[in-house]
Amino acid sequence: MAEVLALKRAEFPGPLHVEQHGEVLRIALANPPANALSIAVMEALQGELDRARDDRAVRVIVLAATGKLFSGGHDLKEMNARRADADGGKAFFEKTFAICSRLMQSIVRHPKPVIAEVDGVATAAGCQLVASCDLAIASDQATFGVNGINVGLFCTTPGVALARGLQPKHAMEMLLTGEMIDASSAREFGLVNRVVPREYLNQIVMKYAQTIASKSPLTLKLGKEAFYAQAEMGLAQAYEYASRVMVENMLACDAKEGIDAFIAKRDPKWTGE
Amino acid sequence: MAEVLALKRAEFPGPLHVEQHGEVLRIALANPPANALSIAVMEALQGELDRARDDRAVRVIVLAATGKLFSGGHDLKEMNARRADADGGKAFFEKTFAICSRLMQSIVRHPKPVIAEVDGVATAAGCQLVASCDLAIASDQATFGVNGINVGLFCTTPGVALARGLQPKHAMEMLLTGEMIDASSAREFGLVNRVVPREYLNQIVMKYAQTIASKSPLTLKLGKEAFYAQAEMGLAQAYEYASRVMVENMLACDAKEGIDAFIAKRDPKWTGE
Amino acid sequence: MAEVLALKRAEFPGPLHVEQHGEVLRIALANPPANALSIAVMEALQGELDRARDDRAVRVIVLAATGKLFSGGHDLKEMNARRADADGGKAFFEKTFAICSRLMQSIVRHPKPVIAEVDGVATAAGCQLVASCDLAIASDQATFGVNGINVGLFCTTPGVALARGLQPKHAMEMLLTGEMIDASSAREFGLVNRVVPREYLNQIVMKYAQTIASKSPLTLKLGKEAFYAQAEMGLAQAYEYASRVMVENMLACDAKEGIDAFIAKRDPKWTGE
Repeated sequence: MAEVLALKRAEFPGPLHVEQHGEVLRIALANPPANALSIAVMEALQGELDRARDDRAVRVIVLAATGKLFSGGHDLKEMNARRADADGGKAFFEKTFAICSRLMQSIVRHPKPVIAEVDGVATAAGCQLVASCDLAIASDQATFGVNGINVGLFCTTPGVALARGLQPKHAMEMLLTGEMIDASSAREFGLVNRVVPREYLNQIVMKYAQTIASKSPLTLKLGKEAFYAQAEMGLAQAYEYASRVMVENMLACDAKEGIDAFIAKRDPKWTGE
Repeated sequence: MAEVLALKRAEFPGPLHVEQHGEVLRIALANPPANALSIAVMEALQGELDRARDDRAVRVIVLAATGKLFSGGHDLKEMNARRADADGGKAFFEKTFAICSRLMQSIVRHPKPVIAEVDGVATAAGCQLVASCDLAIASDQATFGVNGINVGLFCTTPGVALARGLQPKHAMEMLLTGEMIDASSAREFGLVNRVVPREYLNQIVMKYAQTIASKSPLTLKLGKEAFYAQAEMGLAQAYEYASRVMVENMLACDAKEGIDAFIAKRDPKWTGE
Repeated sequence: MAEVLALKRAEFPGPLHVEQHGEVLRIALANPPANALSIAVMEALQGELDRARDDRAVRVIVLAATGKLFSGGHDLKEMNARRADADGGKAFFEKTFAICSRLMQSIVRHPKPVIAEVDGVATAAGCQLVASCDLAIASDQATFGVNGINVGLFCTTPGVALARGLQPKHAMEMLLTGEMIDASSAREFGLVNRVVPREYLNQIVMKYAQTIASKSPLTLKLGKEAFYAQAEMGLAQAYEYASRVMVENMLACDAKEGIDAFIAKRDPKWTGE
């Protein structure tokens, strides 16, 4: 399956490099020089995420990039060119942000954990991508910014991801000044989980991915979905909902197998059911 | 009163060690070796919390544990045994998570501040207990994890407490990998307030407890309740509600006494009214 | 305009020192010794904020203080004196918290970024002022506390700002113990963005203010308003709303100018439209 997939991608090279390593799907932005999130790139990424949703061979997704930048965000030239449209570009801008917002939510709502692997510059919607992933590992050379304010376009949609992941003063410092922060500050702000030397980045990301890929896929799916869902509820409702999910999880085969294996001190064998 | 209580507990030893030190009630899990949160332990803990609610002798509650572990969470053997029930354990699992969720909310909703004193391992619902307390002090030997994912059972209910106390990338790292974190990371993540050498843990926890026990119990009750309630509201509603609570607090005897004492540069005498 | 303003303030000295430095309005509490937030001070501050709202000469607001303290919060003597009123002070307390809560929300809802410049002690509503600003820069001599609990009056309204800016265990430690924290802890808790040597405080605050003042005021207004609004919504609603704001922002003259300038590698000229 993985080899077939690799072949298929080689035949039809697009704005993404997609590779399957064991149970880990690694999707790399490949739209040089800035890995801009043009409509074509966002649609390709959406397609990969949608396909991976039901692909049992995919347990974990890594979101990475080729080249020196992670992603510079939206393609401002592509957008600016559409100001010549009869409506001044309005329909195109609406389409752009609808596609982008759907993409970001697809990461959060994806049944499989998504890990950002960040080297180089991640700005605007590129930074939003990182903030939208479940986990993020950065190289010590990575930098982050939401710098739309510098061109008169406040990073309001990236702010949706930042407001949920960072403390508000940290988010506002980035959004109001448009200044870049280094990887160490990104870790301090809670935007990334870990900062590693560049030469070890891929290796450490794969270690995280493989650790998570070894868990029950059903349990990951139930748990990830419930985590973000309950986070939006009041405490009482959250506990009522989370308790129902726990019971459902307990009654699934994988929890029975996992607990049996734990008590018997052996490795579990997941069926994903 | 405190002595009578100590006697009563000695007569009827249960899965908790309960001691009253001045105005501080110290409840220690005593269900070795793992201090598992079996139904019996959770019901005993719920009983103590309920009793302390209206006991004017109790100003602050410390939640601790005996033995090497803080708590390993639910009793998986107890739960697994009930798979033999006619319903595959469903009713028992529902009961377990209902009791557990009520317990955790009872800590948050308790009129008296609750401080976790953590030495050793706190996992799954054991970690959730720590996250649910108002404050947590850990020994430098304490470790924390929500490792249900390792047995196919995502820590979804612990996730309710983590989502409200930690930044989401930190919570998801713990939930998805199932790995333990040390006390220093727990402090960095905002799961505990302070890390101290093991030999000073009890002493420092008591210092915090006594500091808080010296405040007006009425004011603590009004303030704690309002804090968690307003945190779930929109900003405008939160300020409207919090303003009403401030007025009510100002009109209470203890605020009059406290402000009078402050202006007169003397110590206040609380009546709790 | 700025000079006229300076003259006007000199003629009518009040409890605030108000200065315009270029596009930055610096409002300093000047109600020694404690810079207490009496009704008069809060109303004067509200008046300045309201006036600055539509003053095109004001791009950024700095909130500072004269003297050794930043602000000790409400004027407890003023409040206590009203216990002699026929209603025991109830109407006055209601008025106080209504004015205060409106003031704090006016900072959050203000179309222009507000930066706190904090040297010395910031307690209770004084600490709430800092927490309510978009950014806060503190001197290494600044200290922070919500110490109402010490006089029997829980800092419930300051807790509204703290619950939205700090992690709950940090907020509760401050609220329950009433103890002061130093500037370094305030930075760690996310209450302030940066701590600088006292002798550079004003200079560094002005650098931040001027950086932000160089951005499009329309974009700052749209973006700041949307940030706090979407933060209160569920994820799907937040993205729907934020996408609409992005489209509106893209269609504004300043975004066209900013993106044109970026592509042409020249400096943008904002019209604020």
